[in-house]
Amino acid sequence: MQFGERVDVAQVEEGVVLAPRFDADGLIQVVTTDATAGEVLMVATMNREALALTIELGEAVYWSRSRQTLWHKGATSGLVQRVRELLIDDDQDAIWLRVDVTGGASCHVGYRSCFYRRVPLGAATPGEQNDAPALEFTIHDKVFDPIDVYGDAPNPTRL
Amino acid sequence: MQFGERVDVAQVEEGVVLAPRFDADGLIQVVTTDATAGEVLMVATMNREALALTIELGEAVYWSRSRQTLWHKGATSGLVQRVRELLIDDDQDAIWLRVDVTGGASCHVGYRSCFYRRVPLGAATPGEQNDAPALEFTIHDKVFDPIDVYGDAPNPTRL
Repeated sequence: MQFGERVDVAQVEEGVVLAPRFDADGLIQVVTTDATAGEVLMVATMNREALALTIELGEAVYWSRSRQTLWHKGATSGLVQRVRELLIDDDQDAIWLRVDVTGGASCHVGYRSCFYRRVPLGAATPGEQNDAPALEFTIHDKVFDPIDVYGDAPNPTRL
Repeated sequence: MQFGERVDVAQVEEGVVLAPRFDADGLIQVVTTDATAGEVLMVATMNREALALTIELGEAVYWSRSRQTLWHKGATSGLVQRVRELLIDDDQDAIWLRVDVTGGASCHVGYRSCFYRRVPLGAATPGEQNDAPALEFTIHDKVFDPIDVYGDAPNPTRL
């Protein structure tokens, strides 16, 4: 699959040729939402090959920065993301995938979405200014047990 | 505002202390959705200061990579994003903002969302393999005229 050249701003923003911009590491930002419920499931990256494969297969293929490899989502867990719609943003440096998830979970920790904790808003009180904000869980129940699904595979979270 | 230290995977993934991971450039990925309609409005980045300001103000403040400056969204256009909910992901390297947008538009090109074009899925036919995929517009009408709002300010799109 070929991508278009980025000729000028008008062509990139208002044109009809897919001409994505990859950053200095060759990556483009991706946000993935549930096509039915609408919530954000995960944020990830793709390289050129991952984007081409996602378009061709209709299943999400990312670039794993922690493992430095192509990552066909669900290859290990079975939780494949079928792409219902793939959109690109104005300056063509970000992708939005609307997906249906086999098994209903997208997070390696076992939750439906990777976004299961909220940060309270507002300025810290004088007594709190040296503390980090406390997170509030918005999802309480896991869809699966990560040990059952991933066994002893290395955890992708980097410190 | 302080952020927590990243001690171990369990604390980052299952703990209740905000301990975000900024990349080598000091940035964290952000996805912004409309709190009511749910669609993705934009994908952007924050640095440490932008994240702290967003939490304190309850309005979206990003880091502009094209302008290399803090970017209080709406400062020029008036299209402020009021944050209804701010979530962080499992490994705390991505932010999800659910916002209400004054004026109903978040895209500098004038559309409601930055994601107004779809990439068709499926393998290219033999006759198409040397062509870039053709984009399909999913939003046709602009909410505002960018020239009225931004005048001759430089366009942030980078080629």
